[in-house]
Amino acid sequence: MPGAVLLDLSGVLYDGDVVIDGAVDAVGCLRASGLELRFITNTSRRTRAELIEHLHGLGFDVAQQQLFTAVDAARAWLRQRGLRPYCLVHDNIRSEFDEFDQRDPDAVFVADAAQGFTYDALNRAFRLCQAGAPLLGVGDNRYFSAGGEMFMDAGAFIHAIEFAADVQAVIVGKPSADFFALALDSAGASAADAFMVGDDVFADVQGALAAGIPACLVRTGKYRAGDENRVTGEFRVVDSIVQLADELLSG
Amino acid sequence: MPGAVLLDLSGVLYDGDVVIDGAVDAVGCLRASGLELRFITNTSRRTRAELIEHLHGLGFDVAQQQLFTAVDAARAWLRQRGLRPYCLVHDNIRSEFDEFDQRDPDAVFVADAAQGFTYDALNRAFRLCQAGAPLLGVGDNRYFSAGGEMFMDAGAFIHAIEFAADVQAVIVGKPSADFFALALDSAGASAADAFMVGDDVFADVQGALAAGIPACLVRTGKYRAGDENRVTGEFRVVDSIVQLADELLSG
Repeated sequence: MPGAVLLDLSGVLYDGDVVIDGAVDAVGCLRASGLELRFITNTSRRTRAELIEHLHGLGFDVAQQQLFTAVDAARAWLRQRGLRPYCLVHDNIRSEFDEFDQRDPDAVFVADAAQGFTYDALNRAFRLCQAGAPLLGVGDNRYFSAGGEMFMDAGAFIHAIEFAADVQAVIVGKPSADFFALALDSAGASAADAFMVGDDVFADVQGALAAGIPACLVRTGKYRAGDENRVTGEFRVVDSIVQLADELLSG
Repeated sequence: MPGAVLLDLSGVLYDGDVVIDGAVDAVGCLRASGLELRFITNTSRRTRAELIEHLHGLGFDVAQQQLFTAVDAARAWLRQRGLRPYCLVHDNIRSEFDEFDQRDPDAVFVADAAQGFTYDALNRAFRLCQAGAPLLGVGDNRYFSAGGEMFMDAGAFIHAIEFAADVQAVIVGKPSADFFALALDSAGASAADAFMVGDDVFADVQGALAAGIPACLVRTGKYRAGDENRVTGEFRVVDSIVQLADELLSG
């Protein structure tokens, strides 16, 4: 049994506003067994406070220090370098960047801006990057599922800017090994002693494997038949977090 | 001296609504020397009729049968296959697709939609492609220059959809060898006997070279210092079409 379990949020615990069947109990059992749980997400449509509130509202008992968000990682990255970011982000999380001087930007941060991905906003990001501003990306996720529909995720727009400006983004969230390391450190676990659970075979599973963390793909959320064949490497595949909890706790 | 010269429009003849210095006379001299001229463009913000009118308005004598547009190539591609395209295109050219049944689409065509690149429109294109609809792209241009500013071009958005849906687009315009071949055939010239002139080192120059056509990069339009080092292969680099005309006609 691993020492720590890192859980993706959307698609593993819930899909939109609906809890994945049995997920609340499964998380409760994992916690009760003494495993260190950490929640690790590239989601960027809600502030940290709203994410915690959303999780609590759905019945998940998640403490502040157990939650690792790519948006937090982005703020730390920008802060450490004293940058003035142009933030192409969802209006809902704009307040998370109030600490930064955003006039005359010298960096670009792209998260899941949703309707904020307008031609004008993307052009502004592109022009700054073409002029040399570093491009910071929340994640490289291709798409996500919400309310039974698929939506293009930030990764696709980051790729568009990378291609147009001929630059390479720095990804702060999953699959960045640095991001996984934050959660591992806080749990006091080594990579090999942990376990990453996600519905994104690239950012969650392939990313974790590249960071030396055993991984598990759930067949919930954005999972589509055949996803397990889209990456190489050995990992577990389960119907949902319920099956995983059963297997881990009985194994 | 080549038998035919293929000229890109934007960035070679004009930038936005401004003629490149001396370009009208340079084109006139090339024509007067007996060279077959063809005009070959991925531009997709104007209808064919408007493009011709724009060229005439700027002083360029271009006949209908000398103009090859990627939008025309896209229509031919869709027509040959009897497809019902979802057209993510500029409102201005929507009428060019009136011949197609666009209800219940089974294909996606992406051109330079400008403000039409909304999150909702991109999601619709992405979902269709993820469900198996072929993705047709006008070109793979990264950006273009207009009125002294750079704008993201269709290629960047096509890449975003390709990445999100994990599909490969069919590019109908430059750098497709089939597209160059249309212009060559009409001019009765072989690839080796022609000459492609453009300001896009990828779509124009690299594309032409890959199709066996000698090529020339102009330092006008979207050209930025160092562009000539971004691709491999041998090609000419000139300050503008004026210098090229001088060299071809004296050489």
